[in-house]
Amino acid sequence: MSSEKTNQSWGGRFSEPVDAFVARFTASVDFDKRLYRHDIMGSIAHATMLEQAGVLTRAERDAIIAGLQQIQAEIEAGQFDWRVDLEDVHMNIEARLTDRIGITGKKLHTGRSRNDQVATDIRLWLRDEIDVILAEITRLQQGLLAQAAQHADVIMPGFTHLQTAQPVSFGHHLLAWFEMLSRDYERLVDCRKRVNRMPLGSAALAGTTYPIQREITCQLLGFEAIGGNSLDGVSDRDFAIEFCAAASLAMMHLSRFSEELVLWTSAQFNFIELPDRFCTGSSIMPQKKNPDVPELVRGKSGRVFGALMGLLTLMKGQPLAYNKDNQEDKEPLFDAADTLRDSLRAFADMIPAIKPRVEVMREAARRGFSTATDLADYLVRKGLPFRDCHEIVGHAVKYGVASGKDLAEMSLDELRQFSDQITDDVFAVLTLEGSVNARDHIGGTAPNQVRAAVARGQALLAAR
Amino acid sequence: MSSEKTNQSWGGRFSEPVDAFVARFTASVDFDKRLYRHDIMGSIAHATMLEQAGVLTRAERDAIIAGLQQIQAEIEAGQFDWRVDLEDVHMNIEARLTDRIGITGKKLHTGRSRNDQVATDIRLWLRDEIDVILAEITRLQQGLLAQAAQHADVIMPGFTHLQTAQPVSFGHHLLAWFEMLSRDYERLVDCRKRVNRMPLGSAALAGTTYPIQREITCQLLGFEAIGGNSLDGVSDRDFAIEFCAAASLAMMHLSRFSEELVLWTSAQFNFIELPDRFCTGSSIMPQKKNPDVPELVRGKSGRVFGALMGLLTLMKGQPLAYNKDNQEDKEPLFDAADTLRDSLRAFADMIPAIKPRVEVMREAARRGFSTATDLADYLVRKGLPFRDCHEIVGHAVKYGVASGKDLAEMSLDELRQFSDQITDDVFAVLTLEGSVNARDHIGGTAPNQVRAAVARGQALLAAR
Amino acid sequence: MSSEKTNQSWGGRFSEPVDAFVARFTASVDFDKRLYRHDIMGSIAHATMLEQAGVLTRAERDAIIAGLQQIQAEIEAGQFDWRVDLEDVHMNIEARLTDRIGITGKKLHTGRSRNDQVATDIRLWLRDEIDVILAEITRLQQGLLAQAAQHADVIMPGFTHLQTAQPVSFGHHLLAWFEMLSRDYERLVDCRKRVNRMPLGSAALAGTTYPIQREITCQLLGFEAIGGNSLDGVSDRDFAIEFCAAASLAMMHLSRFSEELVLWTSAQFNFIELPDRFCTGSSIMPQKKNPDVPELVRGKSGRVFGALMGLLTLMKGQPLAYNKDNQEDKEPLFDAADTLRDSLRAFADMIPAIKPRVEVMREAARRGFSTATDLADYLVRKGLPFRDCHEIVGHAVKYGVASGKDLAEMSLDELRQFSDQITDDVFAVLTLEGSVNARDHIGGTAPNQVRAAVARGQALLAAR
Amino acid sequence: MSSEKTNQSWGGRFSEPVDAFVARFTASVDFDKRLYRHDIMGSIAHATMLEQAGVLTRAERDAIIAGLQQIQAEIEAGQFDWRVDLEDVHMNIEARLTDRIGITGKKLHTGRSRNDQVATDIRLWLRDEIDVILAEITRLQQGLLAQAAQHADVIMPGFTHLQTAQPVSFGHHLLAWFEMLSRDYERLVDCRKRVNRMPLGSAALAGTTYPIQREITCQLLGFEAIGGNSLDGVSDRDFAIEFCAAASLAMMHLSRFSEELVLWTSAQFNFIELPDRFCTGSSIMPQKKNPDVPELVRGKSGRVFGALMGLLTLMKGQPLAYNKDNQEDKEPLFDAADTLRDSLRAFADMIPAIKPRVEVMREAARRGFSTATDLADYLVRKGLPFRDCHEIVGHAVKYGVASGKDLAEMSLDELRQFSDQITDDVFAVLTLEGSVNARDHIGGTAPNQVRAAVARGQALLAAR
Repeated sequence: MSSEKTNQSWGGRFSEPVDAFVARFTASVDFDKRLYRHDIMGSIAHATMLEQAGVLTRAERDAIIAGLQQIQAEIEAGQFDWRVDLEDVHMNIEARLTDRIGITGKKLHTGRSRNDQVATDIRLWLRDEIDVILAEITRLQQGLLAQAAQHADVIMPGFTHLQTAQPVSFGHHLLAWFEMLSRDYERLVDCRKRVNRMPLGSAALAGTTYPIQREITCQLLGFEAIGGNSLDGVSDRDFAIEFCAAASLAMMHLSRFSEELVLWTSAQFNFIELPDRFCTGSSIMPQKKNPDVPELVRGKSGRVFGALMGLLTLMKGQPLAYNKDNQEDKEPLFDAADTLRDSLRAFADMIPAIKPRVEVMREAARRGFSTATDLADYLVRKGLPFRDCHEIVGHAVKYGVASGKDLAEMSLDELRQFSDQITDDVFAVLTLEGSVNARDHIGGTAPNQVRAAVARGQALLAAR
Repeated sequence: MSSEKTNQSWGGRFSEPVDAFVARFTASVDFDKRLYRHDIMGSIAHATMLEQAGVLTRAERDAIIAGLQQIQAEIEAGQFDWRVDLEDVHMNIEARLTDRIGITGKKLHTGRSRNDQVATDIRLWLRDEIDVILAEITRLQQGLLAQAAQHADVIMPGFTHLQTAQPVSFGHHLLAWFEMLSRDYERLVDCRKRVNRMPLGSAALAGTTYPIQREITCQLLGFEAIGGNSLDGVSDRDFAIEFCAAASLAMMHLSRFSEELVLWTSAQFNFIELPDRFCTGSSIMPQKKNPDVPELVRGKSGRVFGALMGLLTLMKGQPLAYNKDNQEDKEPLFDAADTLRDSLRAFADMIPAIKPRVEVMREAARRGFSTATDLADYLVRKGLPFRDCHEIVGHAVKYGVASGKDLAEMSLDELRQFSDQITDDVFAVLTLEGSVNARDHIGGTAPNQVRAAVARGQALLAAR
Repeated sequence: MSSEKTNQSWGGRFSEPVDAFVARFTASVDFDKRLYRHDIMGSIAHATMLEQAGVLTRAERDAIIAGLQQIQAEIEAGQFDWRVDLEDVHMNIEARLTDRIGITGKKLHTGRSRNDQVATDIRLWLRDEIDVILAEITRLQQGLLAQAAQHADVIMPGFTHLQTAQPVSFGHHLLAWFEMLSRDYERLVDCRKRVNRMPLGSAALAGTTYPIQREITCQLLGFEAIGGNSLDGVSDRDFAIEFCAAASLAMMHLSRFSEELVLWTSAQFNFIELPDRFCTGSSIMPQKKNPDVPELVRGKSGRVFGALMGLLTLMKGQPLAYNKDNQEDKEPLFDAADTLRDSLRAFADMIPAIKPRVEVMREAARRGFSTATDLADYLVRKGLPFRDCHEIVGHAVKYGVASGKDLAEMSLDELRQFSDQITDDVFAVLTLEGSVNARDHIGGTAPNQVRAAVARGQALLAAR
Repeated sequence: MSSEKTNQSWGGRFSEPVDAFVARFTASVDFDKRLYRHDIMGSIAHATMLEQAGVLTRAERDAIIAGLQQIQAEIEAGQFDWRVDLEDVHMNIEARLTDRIGITGKKLHTGRSRNDQVATDIRLWLRDEIDVILAEITRLQQGLLAQAAQHADVIMPGFTHLQTAQPVSFGHHLLAWFEMLSRDYERLVDCRKRVNRMPLGSAALAGTTYPIQREITCQLLGFEAIGGNSLDGVSDRDFAIEFCAAASLAMMHLSRFSEELVLWTSAQFNFIELPDRFCTGSSIMPQKKNPDVPELVRGKSGRVFGALMGLLTLMKGQPLAYNKDNQEDKEPLFDAADTLRDSLRAFADMIPAIKPRVEVMREAARRGFSTATDLADYLVRKGLPFRDCHEIVGHAVKYGVASGKDLAEMSLDELRQFSDQITDDVFAVLTLEGSVNARDHIGGTAPNQVRAAVARGQALLAAR
């Protein structure tokens, strides 16, 4: 317990200062100082509006704005003394403003509260973060399109259940990732609409008695809409949760990519080469070259899921309006945004540098009866029902497993044991090229479909 | 272990039947039979397309469609024999079709796989569920608007930190809930766009060698777009996760409403009356009337969060394309949709029936120094900086706590102890009506603003 | 809305019946009827105690017990008519008891409440489930020990980062799973202690005015301790959460095993053979044999994590004592227990049936410079600091990658390029057997250490 | 991208340095430097053992130990230069050791790997954290016992469904919290057993070829057991997850306490007084005194749940043995431990300072028909079946609601309307004291039972 005097902005009714440990425990400045730029941006807009509304004089407004700009410069020069006893970024900046410009500084808080101020700051901050993240998604997608265009004709085994299923184009596989990222982009754009609504003017919870003009601050700050209910304005954290949900989906996608990259760089798959600069070694095993970046990204998905769960839990039972619980919204949100942005950056740097081992992929596709479906489809074209063809080919595969031969390695006589509908045109459908080229419809793996999909993807990015 | 013969559709290459426990463990028909209607809808569209593509004859198509319609009738009459050894809804229906129409039934599966079939079914099912949920949200919002319109002038204490903060209109409070639901509606509409894309035609993972025409099935099934990548098409479960995220947010909102309803029906708050039909009693305490519906809804939020977390975990490390893990997508999704729909329904029934205890609310608002901010604002208008006014009023409150008097109960002399700027026009700002009416800007609690917000809300609902 | 009369046990103070949808929405009998056996067991113990306490006569007690036993028989014969309007398992059984034995049946509820009754039932049920789960863990561990004993000398590549690291014994690898399961067993035993405490006697929340003797029911029901606080007794759900946490850890382990089994059955690894009876095929690809059981178990981990998260969320903000939210505790708990039990069962059946492909494993270990650390350790024994040896071997590996030779394939001259400390005794340390045998300390991979670990494991299981 | 040379310990086989962003992205020193003390402790034990095993000379061992001690002093004096290019705490310390003592420093890493080193460090660190947390739990429990002893006779309304249920002793209510914390204590003690097992000696994954003596390091470091499998040793993070699960339960309890404290300090309940030093005010509303500490603790529960979920997700699909994903274990674990420790500290400081408002509590208990169950029990004693008594009292309550009278306020004639079994001895059972005193069995709310429970609690704490 401590008896030292604290400097809170609300001390009038209190008969003892806050306990020193409690002051530290409840302070947020250590993490919310990160919002300084958006806090100042919001304050400048607020002061500008207050002058137009007749609450501040021009001189007061100008003094406030100049003071805030100087404080921003101080912070950016690393010369600002953040004080825990001032609780948060807002009070730190306001106290410093009053130090600098005197009593006028105290007028800045007219017609607002920390409740609407912090809600405004986070939204402005998150809006910027989303924009950076969107740009990283686009950069990563560009890398994928370039790789897919270059490798449309490279054939690898497609897997289901991690068992060889059918041959696919490596470019086609990469474009599956492109699709996932396109949805992530869309979701973040949808989320951004709901981030970009202005709580400023909600004041503590009920609005304010000052003649504020919310349209002015809305326009100055680039918000798309004004929050329609003050109680909701100060307590709504949907935007943070929705962002974390979108970020969780995006990280889940990156985790899936990572899983594949880890598999593909294993000695057993050996499908791609990852440049040394994205790998690290072992302190004990001299031969190791580990795919650290994908492993780490895969691991980082958990922390974003955790942030999402934490925020949902945080809000779940809160009555209106603002409760102190809400202070806990920032760290998970900051962490989720940082994690997603850095993970995307690492992938956007790395993807253009991966190189397929074309021969290894091709050899893997050649084995494992990957063209069994093609054989069944061939028999359908000869007039048999699909389900019967499936059974026939199943028996051929069982024979192949026992005799160590893939379908294309069997003689015509061997194949005809299973159906006399098989004739020597069968071998064309059992080649890898025959197989992939035959899947020639929108969304299919035929190389010309891959090239068409690349073109659609380029148009999509160009239109952003 | 069991040696009984199983009836799987894929037995050709297998040398022993599936173990009986494994068959039960891996079967999904107990829960996925719920998709039967959408499965048949998809199959009818697929057969229609196959005929146009020249894969089926007209007669085959017609036999298939008639057969499927009869099966649907059987299911709806409760006469269908669901078999676990047939694994899932798809094989149960297909096997029955072949029973009914013979060998032609086996042709239905041409050019598709269960992988794209199930992805199509779930999307069709979820699209319908979302539409029902959207309608329930609207119904609940209508109830809120009606209550808000009726009670715009009822004054209650607004809370922050569950401490009396400022007087607010009860209608204003209800409209905060309206805002939350509007965002839920928007999010589900955004989600629905991404649900409503067609994976059919992706086949097992790579597309199909048959000359399918995906535009036809897309149009027949009312999808908005065709999935652009087959690997993604069979493995994407984003739409289920995005739905669960939107449902989690909506349940979080309902949990917050519930928390307030539970508080408000307590003897200590006693703010509203909840009709007996939404309550239950105790088996031991004869006096009890418990707000079961809100409590249960509050409790149900956890299961939807759990479903979201389960689905994110499910997908997180899966390489492309389909893996059996994905079978675990359905139960959480079904449960989340059911929970949200029923919870909304319960609220939409209940909200129009709650009655505010106007006098209790008013009395609560009168106490607790709820107009302290108004006094501070009054002093600002007399020319003092806000921060100083805050301090002055803080001292007045401390005096009030000690002397047991609210601000409006103090004499002018008592008030002037704290500032000689206070004159007898102060009493007007210390009334509840004075306080709420003064917050007269968009989003503020002034009753005429509440009425304006109701009008905006009505327009919003009308435009849906 | 419905006006039909309901049959609740608490109707006295109510002026209208519960709304029909609300009755369905708030009823739990659909899922809690599963507790019938434990409910009856608890009621019999309660009636026995009430007689000893002088609250019931012998004749009343005997009538009640006989009635309950007949009801249990009815339920088990499928002849019991579960009624939703009676809300839950407790009221269904009690109502049926009164039907059968008349007014005496109503006396059973003396001195207890549904609040302590349900808490007692769930604990009794969970105690039994834990015992079944513990037995399945032991069965699975026995399978692992048998496999490890048999394959102590089989050498496979050990991986870190999914890159070849060092050769290990296949038996050693299996014993890592044994260790995880041992911790799961311990955790469930620890959890069981806290499950096995008796809330009965807490009544609604405050205890009861009847002269109950809790020691008697405690002993009759086999509880280890009597709950020391009635408010806590009716509201505590820690045991369910702790169980779900232990189950989540166990499922996480099974998910890790599954991941390995899926990798090992892929064409690329091809390390083990999984009998057909644990696999399923594809409806479209005739060659497929998919490792469904491990995939499904991996997928099922998410639902148990979700149950854990749901229960934590459920409890997080509840004031004392019982709230209706708690009704939501059962479905996640039931599902978590079922999932864990069935997943363990599937693994306990499957593990004894997996077969290592000894030559494939050995060949994989031979490649990938897996003995590089052994070479470094060899140089340390020649007197160089470990860090320098690491560097030397790193250069040798780089040469090997470029020249396509593993270390054991290089000539002495080639090796001596990197250090003249290398002499021809080096080749002994570069063999697989040399490598594994050299790690000969407790916990190391040397086959004799593996056999020692198997012996320790057998002793552990024998002592359970 | 950067071409600057990096200083990794594993560079031999690499042909280009790690990309600068990747180096930052994959480095952990920013957060794992916190482990420095335990890292050095582990290294000293390892060096001591290596000397006994004949791997180091005495002089080497002494040089290493002295060097490490000087490094610890440097770190604690804030003079240590942590370098991101050295990746982590381990390499930073080892590099500095070699700077100080030359080539001998490089020998410290003989017979271990960073994989077993970091696993050892975290366990040592967590063991210490658990001990601090256990002490805080005890301190908080002492505060509860003291309050309960002092207020055993204070009567408040007990709630179920937040509706007045039955009168309870305030001391009894506080002891429900005591029970929860006792379980938390037990769980952490159980968890500590599994934390306190030694992975050191597992080396990279397979053990080491050096003649290490694990019993020596085990004893030096105070571990209870030696990890029995090296693959498990380097990859096991169960202990971190189990800790986070126990911490989540404890935070859930603190969140429930917090919910009650927030309710009790509201104007509507007004049950307790919380000293100013645990509260903060509002920047805009001068009258506010907000219960920040409980609100914040309630909010903090979410982040610990998130950490638990993140860690389960992290591990869920990892094949053996160590993967880079595991680096993500530390931040959630650190955060969970910090959060729990600080939250407990805040509560342990605060609880002794709360003061019940005895008259307010009593008045609240007097209203709300809290003795209705007592009336029903009274009628049972007159010979009626409980279920019928419940109905009778239900009617009396309905009459009371309509007439505005609590049961004790009705005349005998009024009461006899509902049953002629009621005589004038009824009024004794309708008093608050009569009600609480009648619940006189272990776990019941009778004040003498509360005092007995306090005595049991004191004995429990004394025995720790």
